[in-house]
Amino acid sequence: MPQTPFAPIRRFILAGLTVAGLLLPAAGAAARPTADGSPAKAPRTLRSVAFLVVDGVYNTELTAPLDVFQHVRFHSADDWPETFLVSPDGRSVTSFEGLTIQPDYSFANAPPIDLLVVPSAEGSMTSDLDNQALLDWVRRTGRKARHVMSLCDGAFVLAEAGLLDGLEATTFPGDQDRFEARFTRVKLVRDVIFVDAGHALTSVGGARSFDVALWLVEQLYGVKAARGIGQGLVLDWDATSVPHRLARP
Amino acid sequence: MPQTPFAPIRRFILAGLTVAGLLLPAAGAAARPTADGSPAKAPRTLRSVAFLVVDGVYNTELTAPLDVFQHVRFHSADDWPETFLVSPDGRSVTSFEGLTIQPDYSFANAPPIDLLVVPSAEGSMTSDLDNQALLDWVRRTGRKARHVMSLCDGAFVLAEAGLLDGLEATTFPGDQDRFEARFTRVKLVRDVIFVDAGHALTSVGGARSFDVALWLVEQLYGVKAARGIGQGLVLDWDATSVPHRLARP
Repeated sequence: MPQTPFAPIRRFILAGLTVAGLLLPAAGAAARPTADGSPAKAPRTLRSVAFLVVDGVYNTELTAPLDVFQHVRFHSADDWPETFLVSPDGRSVTSFEGLTIQPDYSFANAPPIDLLVVPSAEGSMTSDLDNQALLDWVRRTGRKARHVMSLCDGAFVLAEAGLLDGLEATTFPGDQDRFEARFTRVKLVRDVIFVDAGHALTSVGGARSFDVALWLVEQLYGVKAARGIGQGLVLDWDATSVPHRLARP
Repeated sequence: MPQTPFAPIRRFILAGLTVAGLLLPAAGAAARPTADGSPAKAPRTLRSVAFLVVDGVYNTELTAPLDVFQHVRFHSADDWPETFLVSPDGRSVTSFEGLTIQPDYSFANAPPIDLLVVPSAEGSMTSDLDNQALLDWVRRTGRKARHVMSLCDGAFVLAEAGLLDGLEATTFPGDQDRFEARFTRVKLVRDVIFVDAGHALTSVGGARSFDVALWLVEQLYGVKAARGIGQGLVLDWDATSVPHRLARP
C-alpha cells in the first residue's frame, strides 16, 4: 500500500512518549473534576479497547487492530484508549498459528469496554457459535459498548449474538455466501474492505485488518493521528483509496 | 493491496489439513530412510523457521511473517516448516503493544534453525545492540541458518552481528539514515519494500512484513503456495507489484 519514496518517520522517538502517557489519568477518571477546582477534562474518546481472544484466534486479526489502537497514544497525547485482551476464563490461549498469549482479563473481571474487537478464530463459524457463555458475554458487552468491530469471521460471532441485526456488514470473502445464508437479518456487503454501520464495524480481515481500525481512529482522533499511525506501520493511510461502505443508521 | 472482486477462498477448509500435517515426519527426520526400505523422502525445504522474540518486540513484525510461514502447511502438504519462537531465556516476553507471549525455546535449547527471523523491537537500535549474548546467538545461529530475515529495525541486529557485511539490505524508512551511518559494511537500499541478498532478506517491516515472507515462500515453495497463503490473508500476492531488490551474490 505505501508508495515510495517514503517520508521520514520517527516511530521510535514517538515511542518515548510512553512515559508521558503514563501520567495521564487512569481509564474512567478523565471526566472527574480536578482537585484544584479547574475545569474537568472532557471524557476520553475511547477509554478502552478490548480484544476478545479464544483458542484458535488468528494472529493478524488480533495484532493488526491492537497495534493501531495501542499506537494512538503516540499520536494523540491527551486522549488515547487503554488496550487489553479478554479471554473467557482469563487463562492463556493458543492462537491458530501457535502463539501462546496471556490475556489481561476474564469475562468475570474485565473492566468497562468502549470498543469490543472480535478477531476471527478457528471456531468462529462453528464451535464458537454454540458457546452460549461466549455469545452472552459478547451480546451483553457489545450492547453496552460504544462500538463493536469484527475482523474476518469474527462477524459470525457478532451476528450470532444479534449485534448485527438490521445492519449492513461484511466478512472474509470466501465465507460471505455462508454468512448471507445463515444471518438473514444482516445485509451482507461484498466487494469492500470494511463496512461502518455506526455501532458495528466489520472487516474482511487478514492483512486488511489494519484498515478498519485506522478508519475508526480517523473518525475519532482525526486524520493526522490515523496517518501517523499508518506511517509507523509503513502504511500510506488514505481512506479514499480503500473500498468501504458507510451505512450508519 | 487486494483488489475486488475477491476470488472465493476457503481458508477454513484448508485449515482442516492440520491433522494430516501432523502425520508428516518430525523436523529433521524427513531425509532418513524409511523403515520398509522405500526411498527416503527428500529433505524438507525449510525444516524450521524460528522467530527471535525479546521484550518490546513489535507485534506485527512477529505475526505477519509467522502467519505466512505457519500457513505453508495448508498449501504445501508434503513440505512445510515447523515454526517456533525463541527468547533469550525461554521466559515470556511483553511486546511493545503489551501482548504477553510465551516462547517455545530459549537460546540454550532451541532446535536447529533453517530460517532465523528477527522482528524489530523497541531496543533494536539501542539496548539490543549492546547485548552481547543476544548478538552472539544471532551471529552463531544466523551463520548456520540457510537464511536470515529481518523486519524493520531487526536489520540493526543482523548488521551488528555481522550477518549483513558486504550485502545489500534495507530497514524501516525513518531509520535508514541512521542505519547507513552506523553500518558502513552494508549497502543500504532505499525505496524498496524488501531486499533479497541471498542469505539475508531484509524488509521495511510494519504491515509490509508480509511481503518478504511471501516472497521467500514463492522462491522455496512456488508461486501457487505464496498466492494461496496471500489469499487466506486477503492479500493479492504478486511480487511484480512490490518494489524490491534482488541482490544475491
